[in-house]
Amino acid sequence: MKAIFWDGDAVSLDSSYSLPVSGQDTAIVKVHLAGICSTDLQIFKGYMQFRGVPGHEFVGSVSQGPKEWLDKRVVGEINFGCGKCEFCARDLTRHCSNRTVMGILNADGAFAEYVAVPVENLHPVPGSISDEQAVFTEPLAAAFEILRQIQISTGDEILILGDGKLGNLCAQVLRLTGAKVTALGRHQNKLDLIKRTGVRTMLLNDWRPCLFDVVVEATGSAAGLELAISAVRPRGTLVLKSTIAAAHQVSLAMVVINEINLVGSRCGVFPDALEALAANHVSVAPLIEQVYPLEHGIEAIQHAERRGARKILLRP
Amino acid sequence: MKAIFWDGDAVSLDSSYSLPVSGQDTAIVKVHLAGICSTDLQIFKGYMQFRGVPGHEFVGSVSQGPKEWLDKRVVGEINFGCGKCEFCARDLTRHCSNRTVMGILNADGAFAEYVAVPVENLHPVPGSISDEQAVFTEPLAAAFEILRQIQISTGDEILILGDGKLGNLCAQVLRLTGAKVTALGRHQNKLDLIKRTGVRTMLLNDWRPCLFDVVVEATGSAAGLELAISAVRPRGTLVLKSTIAAAHQVSLAMVVINEINLVGSRCGVFPDALEALAANHVSVAPLIEQVYPLEHGIEAIQHAERRGARKILLRP
Repeated sequence: MKAIFWDGDAVSLDSSYSLPVSGQDTAIVKVHLAGICSTDLQIFKGYMQFRGVPGHEFVGSVSQGPKEWLDKRVVGEINFGCGKCEFCARDLTRHCSNRTVMGILNADGAFAEYVAVPVENLHPVPGSISDEQAVFTEPLAAAFEILRQIQISTGDEILILGDGKLGNLCAQVLRLTGAKVTALGRHQNKLDLIKRTGVRTMLLNDWRPCLFDVVVEATGSAAGLELAISAVRPRGTLVLKSTIAAAHQVSLAMVVINEINLVGSRCGVFPDALEALAANHVSVAPLIEQVYPLEHGIEAIQHAERRGARKILLRP
Repeated sequence: MKAIFWDGDAVSLDSSYSLPVSGQDTAIVKVHLAGICSTDLQIFKGYMQFRGVPGHEFVGSVSQGPKEWLDKRVVGEINFGCGKCEFCARDLTRHCSNRTVMGILNADGAFAEYVAVPVENLHPVPGSISDEQAVFTEPLAAAFEILRQIQISTGDEILILGDGKLGNLCAQVLRLTGAKVTALGRHQNKLDLIKRTGVRTMLLNDWRPCLFDVVVEATGSAAGLELAISAVRPRGTLVLKSTIAAAHQVSLAMVVINEINLVGSRCGVFPDALEALAANHVSVAPLIEQVYPLEHGIEAIQHAERRGARKILLRP
């Protein structure tokens, strides 16, 4: 099959990559669409020392697997747990220390015609959700994860740092709580996208120091952290969404002095995201910038790396 | 009166420093004992750009003030709030943005014969608590603050990083919850002190990576943070107790990947500490290394700066 391959040095298109193998608990999914995520771009900079087929945002249909799943349109949770440890038992497979992660850690991903997914990770996609929406399930679930980690009250003032895809999704999800959400970013066009969803927006150039109950750092860059810390009120919460491989040079003195609660936040569970998509509570289609055929995957990745690019999709 | 004075460049003994002035809401406390704290030593390195009389750990007796307080033995909360803001209303004076802080921010401290304290900050010291115990009320309250910020379950595995005074107090306080507490440090003699209170101890040289539900960073140095992050289990809690002026060079990627909850923790409220001292639930006297007369305050500070020094007290 065709697949995009990362060997640790370069990305290539492999036209005869081995087909993934199905098993009793593993389905083979024919990929309809896959999204290129910032984490993929970090991987091409050395993050997680991954080698193989990248890609963890996808929608597809089951081509091999248990009868009840055959031909079903699906999305899939990306952490494949051991099924035996304390975390797997607590439905926290994403923290299983023996896990593999699709396209990120010891498991091939979805930048290919087919991808192997444990059956228990699959979620059927309701007919009312298009492929172009469903491919956002994984990043949208990551935004919903915030609501499972921290308490937000109606009337809370929330600042989202970053106007990229993750910032956009976090802003839309947090707005659902009734909190007052402001998105702060560098790009007027991206802020305009966020504004359309009913969120207040502000250009970084217009920023004047003020304090928020909750700040979400979703810039994807190390530089955002200092501003983020300075914008949290005493006893407030700072949610860290960016996984940056590089070390931050930052003083955490204000975290101690202001007794800030800093919460690392990563993957979420899919049902929250699928429900929101089905109910049209969030708008994801405007985030798509371009869809490339898989054969043009390298060009697509270069496009995704451009400053200010919105979501780039691959269609095998 | 005699007072230790920090002018931003040097510490000096001033024999004719102006007496503090009492007011309707301010008492004058004759200092019996004052403790030299790591924060004082940080101040002498530029922390908070403080100028004046340092010192915020003290016990004394009221020499001027409202009748009902006269001659009472007291300790005093160190944050002096505006009394009008949202934080003061919520009994979080320590986060009032207009606050002054005794010996740290725009208010003279207790390295002097007398110190001014708002009456509402005073707490009477029960007769069963000696001056040598009571002078630990402020740092002990800071250790109890952890219990007001995070949930600890019996059986939780807790790691205290740092065998200094704060590490010692944190270990003793957290042990009261029924959790399994391990203190990790560099100094066998200090670990022995902690061990006597029923806490497990381990020399840093014997450290083998393992994971804890809660880690408390109380080393007072920037270097402890990386080890602290690596020792927190996924979804666990890291309490930051050290206020370090210098910037940390650290990757927070593991905070995100493991969804760690990082909690900055500073001052606490005094009643928790006074109750524990009165009930002999914590042991503080062994932490005292030496008591100096105030006249030898400069020598005392030099002693406190020595690597491995325990608590140094000043007696005016």
